[in-house]
Amino acid sequence: MIPILCIVGASNSGKTTFLEKLIPELIQRGYHVGTVKHDVHGFEMDREGKDTWKHRKAGAQTIAISSPSQVAMIRNVEEEAELDELCGRYFWKEDILLTEGYKQSRFPKIEVFRAAIGNKPVCGPGDNLVGMISDDAVQAAVPVFRFDEPGKVADLIEERFLRGRKKNQILVYVDGKRLPMKDFVRDFVAGGIVGMLSSLKGWEEPRKVDIQIRLEEE
Amino acid sequence: MIPILCIVGASNSGKTTFLEKLIPELIQRGYHVGTVKHDVHGFEMDREGKDTWKHRKAGAQTIAISSPSQVAMIRNVEEEAELDELCGRYFWKEDILLTEGYKQSRFPKIEVFRAAIGNKPVCGPGDNLVGMISDDAVQAAVPVFRFDEPGKVADLIEERFLRGRKKNQILVYVDGKRLPMKDFVRDFVAGGIVGMLSSLKGWEEPRKVDIQIRLEEE
Repeated sequence: MIPILCIVGASNSGKTTFLEKLIPELIQRGYHVGTVKHDVHGFEMDREGKDTWKHRKAGAQTIAISSPSQVAMIRNVEEEAELDELCGRYFWKEDILLTEGYKQSRFPKIEVFRAAIGNKPVCGPGDNLVGMISDDAVQAAVPVFRFDEPGKVADLIEERFLRGRKKNQILVYVDGKRLPMKDFVRDFVAGGIVGMLSSLKGWEEPRKVDIQIRLEEE
Repeated sequence: MIPILCIVGASNSGKTTFLEKLIPELIQRGYHVGTVKHDVHGFEMDREGKDTWKHRKAGAQTIAISSPSQVAMIRNVEEEAELDELCGRYFWKEDILLTEGYKQSRFPKIEVFRAAIGNKPVCGPGDNLVGMISDDAVQAAVPVFRFDEPGKVADLIEERFLRGRKKNQILVYVDGKRLPMKDFVRDFVAGGIVGMLSSLKGWEEPRKVDIQIRLEEE
């Protein structure tokens, strides 16, 4: 799975504004960036009257639209997707996934803080905070960057998440749920699968392998 | 992979209109339906000014938004995705995938035809046509249904695609491309993987298994 870094903070603290500076900084350095917005209220993505909108209105559970330059998809879900499930399903060509929100997740975080918005930061000890963005005088156990320092934040991200990444990773989902595996089981399963597949025509040393198995029903 | 049926026809022949009748008919019968719209010109899915729109504008290659009831995703691609790749990646809980367009694909098709639009149907012999929708007097080697007969079309779909489906299927993508496998290799690989995983805690007879492997780079 690609590294995930959550940009968190109170409403209106400037998360989107900071992401708008940070994303181009990482792209300039040659990385592919994906983002996930955590939306707690519900959102409207499609436009009324479009064909895809009509498909959904007619009851399609998942719709996609595909063109030579873009693919989009909208799915109805019964419960909120976990962040690592989203990452595994939708982000396979990116080098890093930045989220807007997800302060409750276990992933590393950077908090965007403005004193004018809240009395104190939303993250505390144990929240896996790796940095803060603030123009205020903040006391923190992590590095604090100003809003106009996306380059320094990109340095931190490269240093901590993009260099020397652990490779040869395997994720298994059974009916959409992550199957937990210890390290040696993981290595064994990945090695077994790669071993089986690597002799087939068309293999040619890929970076990423996706396997989907549908099992017989009763 | 779930069955795919392409609804094709000339522009303005009534593909969307017919899908708006067919989708609820299948849903009433207890099926989960997914759709893919083939868009050759390019589309705008997000709304200007939204956070996700800003993420993309800043350069994010793939963006997603997740709420308790919906997930949406928009991805920039360098070449158009194949229909079976779209199906494998985005549709795992659906029983059938209906497309609007994709008349060049190898998948079974139903043509929507109105004489007022074109001189003759777009599909010919060898196009894997399984039915036609038309209110005109059409001579065809396949069953012809009127626009107000979505129930009869749903009967045909149930009969041909939803009953007695071949089970235990495996699809492998290497760097996003389908790895071709003969039937016995397929069975061998699926059996080997399921064998390895089924003894792990958390397995519990799933219907669908997704495996993502990221291999070490040079």
